[in-house]
Amino acid sequence: MTAARAAILVTGSEILLGRTVDTNSSFIARELDRHGIRVIRTVAVDDHPTSIGDGLRDLLASGADLVVTSGGLGPTHDDVTMACVAEAAGLPVALDERVLARIEQKVAAFAASRGTDPAAYDRGNRKQATVPVGAEVLGPVGTAPGAIVPAGSQRIVVLPGPPAELAQMWPEVVASPLLASLLGGAQPRRVLRLYGVPESEVGDVFADLGGDADGTETTICASRAEIEIVIRHRPDAAAAAAHLADGFRERFGRSLFAEGPERLEEIVLHALRGRSWTLAVAESCTAGLVAARLAEVPGASTVLLGGVIAYADDVKRDVLRVPAATLRDHGAVSAESARAMAEGARRLLGSDVAVAVTGIAGPGGGSDTKPVGLVHVHVAGPGVERALERRWPGTRAAVRDWSATSALHLVRLLVRDA
Amino acid sequence: MTAARAAILVTGSEILLGRTVDTNSSFIARELDRHGIRVIRTVAVDDHPTSIGDGLRDLLASGADLVVTSGGLGPTHDDVTMACVAEAAGLPVALDERVLARIEQKVAAFAASRGTDPAAYDRGNRKQATVPVGAEVLGPVGTAPGAIVPAGSQRIVVLPGPPAELAQMWPEVVASPLLASLLGGAQPRRVLRLYGVPESEVGDVFADLGGDADGTETTICASRAEIEIVIRHRPDAAAAAAHLADGFRERFGRSLFAEGPERLEEIVLHALRGRSWTLAVAESCTAGLVAARLAEVPGASTVLLGGVIAYADDVKRDVLRVPAATLRDHGAVSAESARAMAEGARRLLGSDVAVAVTGIAGPGGGSDTKPVGLVHVHVAGPGVERALERRWPGTRAAVRDWSATSALHLVRLLVRDA
Repeated sequence: MTAARAAILVTGSEILLGRTVDTNSSFIARELDRHGIRVIRTVAVDDHPTSIGDGLRDLLASGADLVVTSGGLGPTHDDVTMACVAEAAGLPVALDERVLARIEQKVAAFAASRGTDPAAYDRGNRKQATVPVGAEVLGPVGTAPGAIVPAGSQRIVVLPGPPAELAQMWPEVVASPLLASLLGGAQPRRVLRLYGVPESEVGDVFADLGGDADGTETTICASRAEIEIVIRHRPDAAAAAAHLADGFRERFGRSLFAEGPERLEEIVLHALRGRSWTLAVAESCTAGLVAARLAEVPGASTVLLGGVIAYADDVKRDVLRVPAATLRDHGAVSAESARAMAEGARRLLGSDVAVAVTGIAGPGGGSDTKPVGLVHVHVAGPGVERALERRWPGTRAAVRDWSATSALHLVRLLVRDA
Repeated sequence: MTAARAAILVTGSEILLGRTVDTNSSFIARELDRHGIRVIRTVAVDDHPTSIGDGLRDLLASGADLVVTSGGLGPTHDDVTMACVAEAAGLPVALDERVLARIEQKVAAFAASRGTDPAAYDRGNRKQATVPVGAEVLGPVGTAPGAIVPAGSQRIVVLPGPPAELAQMWPEVVASPLLASLLGGAQPRRVLRLYGVPESEVGDVFADLGGDADGTETTICASRAEIEIVIRHRPDAAAAAAHLADGFRERFGRSLFAEGPERLEEIVLHALRGRSWTLAVAESCTAGLVAARLAEVPGASTVLLGGVIAYADDVKRDVLRVPAATLRDHGAVSAESARAMAEGARRLLGSDVAVAVTGIAGPGGGSDTKPVGLVHVHVAGPGVERALERRWPGTRAAVRDWSATSALHLVRLLVRDA
């Protein structure tokens, strides 16, 4: 079976104006990839009916078996995706009374929790219950139903814009009989993820290994301080893919931290859980990012106790008990302060391991000896510790993001080598 | 002058596979909007030369004055954007020795800080210094130079993929003489941002106000617990735009929290700074998100002292001094515990104001009386306090995100009404 091809159409003037970052196309693409469907193009257009209509027509003409849309299903006048999809598919629309009843039930509960009058929602409810005839209606999760709409032999999947609603509706998409013939298994692949290696060195090793063989397709992607190598291959090219993977592994073995898609946060929590170790944080420039990222993972609470956000030096001194002399002699951004912060958090929260981050995120606050981007990380555990000093380039957001990532890696390395 | 039209082409297999969320198109769109350029379409394609070539041709044919690309400038074999742009523009490429020297200087510093051999980067350096003849070369910020490439009367702006590099290169784009004729002022607009109002009620009020007049274009966008109304208008339709803005303001005045694009975090910090009040956080389910979001703003340290991430109940009790009886009788997710957490953080850090968040982010941990999505927020200030209980729908990430947003709003409301 050839892999089915999909295109994604994201609608929303707020996206084309840069007011909202689109995370839906990434979610949809990842999920489609899991089912062996290849996304050939993602397009974002504004809310105008002509823009959405043009986008749908272009993508249906591009040879996609499946077009997935996101957004434009709300109750207000400028949400027109469902009508545009019906037109592109050549189908009339009609009010679906059963869907209306489901929406009204949702709205009643929501209005009650807010103390607003359900009648205020009537016009919107009827609008949202008007769907293409012959479509399979999905949800609603919020108040906006989605749909799977046949367009000849092609399919248009219509999903709401709010990311949480879209994600919650997704299992209905996958289960739909209208898509059963398109969804297959994922294409075979090898994934290698490295930490602390320059991207161009990975490129050189790839060239030395002979590059892609017939039937393999390698991508090398750098983000945060990590590099991800994905080697996709045809089933009959498994040996060539293994040759590449083995070559990378031999060359970068110590830097390899994962051979699958699991998140760094999950890897760190899993490693700590394997030792029955708990974790606390002491965060200055990252101000909670490290803990917040760990807490994204369900069940993080079995490992993560919490921590101290020590943004002000007084908090480092009074709450984390960093000695005043350390702050005075070495400064708050120093290996010594990072170490004292980690020890302080470990003592205060009674955790097995604590990680501290202190740095100069910028744009102000830098000096010749301590420039913007300078970050110290320290991890303290039972009888072990590990320190890292880095100078990250880029914006305040990048420095904080990379600092949090390297803090998580330092915890991982401490546990690995302990 | 008619507004110039732009299209954005984001390249990267990792985006079409959903491994990376594209934030660059949002950044570019927001910046172009500030210069009065209207983005008509954003497209993402994979790294293949044919995909990038097709994307460029489609967008150049779409009537865009300007196509901005992002990504595919790295040192490895699968980064081919610059060559594709040269081909689309009908220009040859050549090694630019001055650009090579600039890259080598950057790489030397980077290699030194990592302790790697600069020679490992040679091949990549030469590849990255090969640019279209006649292009204006930008940067490099990292090691990848960007470019502004003339394509007949159209322009192609070629930017790197790493968001921090792209952002740092942007001022060079805006300053380029090759783009001077396209960059104008922003289209006049009114912005109204509401908190705590149902989207469909805003739609109804909009309809009652008569909807858009000739020359106005209103978008209503809900995200997190907020609604943003943007009324764009032709200069000669200022009165009609004012009529709409006045109507919304009259109806939703108490819910209106901003009439511009400033971020909620900035608004909260500004409000606190106006009273010379400092802030501390006590975060359970959000685990640092509230503080991390505030710390995104440069200069946050004049207001934000830090706080305690009290993920485990022991930390609530031992560090924040939430009475054991409160935790036992009411549970960690209760108005009483939220209040004690806020008071504890205020006392421990010596801040004027403290905000506490405790809730059940899910997917597990819910019960009949305390379902997933239940969140209590409490803000304590000098002689004032304010509490909020909400039940948010959606995923773990959505519950945490909305909780953090409503915590920031609750601080804002406490300061406003104090």
